[in-house]
Amino acid sequence: MNEDVMVGGHISRQYDEELDEIRSRVLQMGGLVETQMDKTLDALREDESDHIVDVEKLDRKVNKMEMLIDEECTQILAKRQPAAGDLRLIIATSKSVRDLERIGDEAERVAHMVRNAMDNQISKKAFKGLLSLGEQTKELLHKTLNVYARMETRKAVKLMRKDQEIDDEYSRVVLRLIEYMKKDPDNISDALDVMWAARSLERIGDHCINILENVIYLVEGEDVRHTGIKEIKRQLSNSD
Amino acid sequence: MNEDVMVGGHISRQYDEELDEIRSRVLQMGGLVETQMDKTLDALREDESDHIVDVEKLDRKVNKMEMLIDEECTQILAKRQPAAGDLRLIIATSKSVRDLERIGDEAERVAHMVRNAMDNQISKKAFKGLLSLGEQTKELLHKTLNVYARMETRKAVKLMRKDQEIDDEYSRVVLRLIEYMKKDPDNISDALDVMWAARSLERIGDHCINILENVIYLVEGEDVRHTGIKEIKRQLSNSD
Repeated sequence: MNEDVMVGGHISRQYDEELDEIRSRVLQMGGLVETQMDKTLDALREDESDHIVDVEKLDRKVNKMEMLIDEECTQILAKRQPAAGDLRLIIATSKSVRDLERIGDEAERVAHMVRNAMDNQISKKAFKGLLSLGEQTKELLHKTLNVYARMETRKAVKLMRKDQEIDDEYSRVVLRLIEYMKKDPDNISDALDVMWAARSLERIGDHCINILENVIYLVEGEDVRHTGIKEIKRQLSNSD
Repeated sequence: MNEDVMVGGHISRQYDEELDEIRSRVLQMGGLVETQMDKTLDALREDESDHIVDVEKLDRKVNKMEMLIDEECTQILAKRQPAAGDLRLIIATSKSVRDLERIGDEAERVAHMVRNAMDNQISKKAFKGLLSLGEQTKELLHKTLNVYARMETRKAVKLMRKDQEIDDEYSRVVLRLIEYMKKDPDNISDALDVMWAARSLERIGDHCINILENVIYLVEGEDVRHTGIKEIKRQLSNSD
């Protein structure tokens, strides 16, 4: 970590390559997490346990990627002296990989719920709404990764609104499950499993929002956590 | 951010002071979050809505502290060239304040559930077990902050085991709530509120574990995320 930093154009190119590599790795990790989401939804659609094994295998890969990217970020901080935008890239990346890893964890939780459901032969009725919530969340994740790849802050702000739609869909799923539980107390345990899964999907939405906030911070240098969307839009229009 | 770094003993002292300040601020933020937890448990014990307003006020302070400390970490990364231990301090701190902020959020969620419960005059029976889960979690948070203050990795590893106890208590609370729901479907909505609160408390335990992992990384330079406790102990004994 303390090796001397060489000086000259060559090093600068190498440094650029290192930063590019980090960006690519984040997208690669994002791809793995997206696949986890796909497989989880496949399991939900098809009642097929093979997909769940895949989700678990992917989770180990995602965990390794998180540690690898974090280590690369630390190396760059130690070896280079990143300033301004480069520094923000490292900080935003380190935060975003944590969110990606959490998304993977939540996807795995949903997958386990699907396995439980299969083992306990849970009524298909309990699942109603979960798949559409899952699909909305997956779409948000996909678009979030696109925003990260292209560093588009305006799209980031636009996308942040999607979280409200996901929250609304989540509330509808929960209300439906409460009705299902009330109908017959024997449904309660099953419905709770589905409810945890819905909660995990809703959390995935929250993690996507975190990543979008990181992109805005990275590009604009504005820390927009704990800031409302209106205020973020105002800040962005002032920075034009 | 790009101002020139002065050279000499004075600057080194100033740098030390900056690092000390960051450590103190994290503990100060930890104190605020602990107070949030205290007030939340007071509200739970005493059915008193004043405490809940305090929790909300504290949350705004906690959010500001998170952004302030993060900004200070970024400044140090940009101005100084922290290496080895100092760099790990900055990285571990930046991660830990995020966990602290999440703990504050979860405490606020519990507080809101208590308010809902008061508004809806939820039966006290539904709360059974939640307080003891809350107290266990608060104790873990308190000890976690002590470990951070004194940078004691061995205590960190010991404390990480507490998470299992909290998970067990959480499972007991959930099972009791399921029984309560089964007894009368009219109890379902109330019991679900309490269940979300229990889940939030369990998550607080998870965030404490993250902070403990950060302390180990900071002191030992070992990234112990995704590593079992046995393996962590082995790594620590090898590093003697």
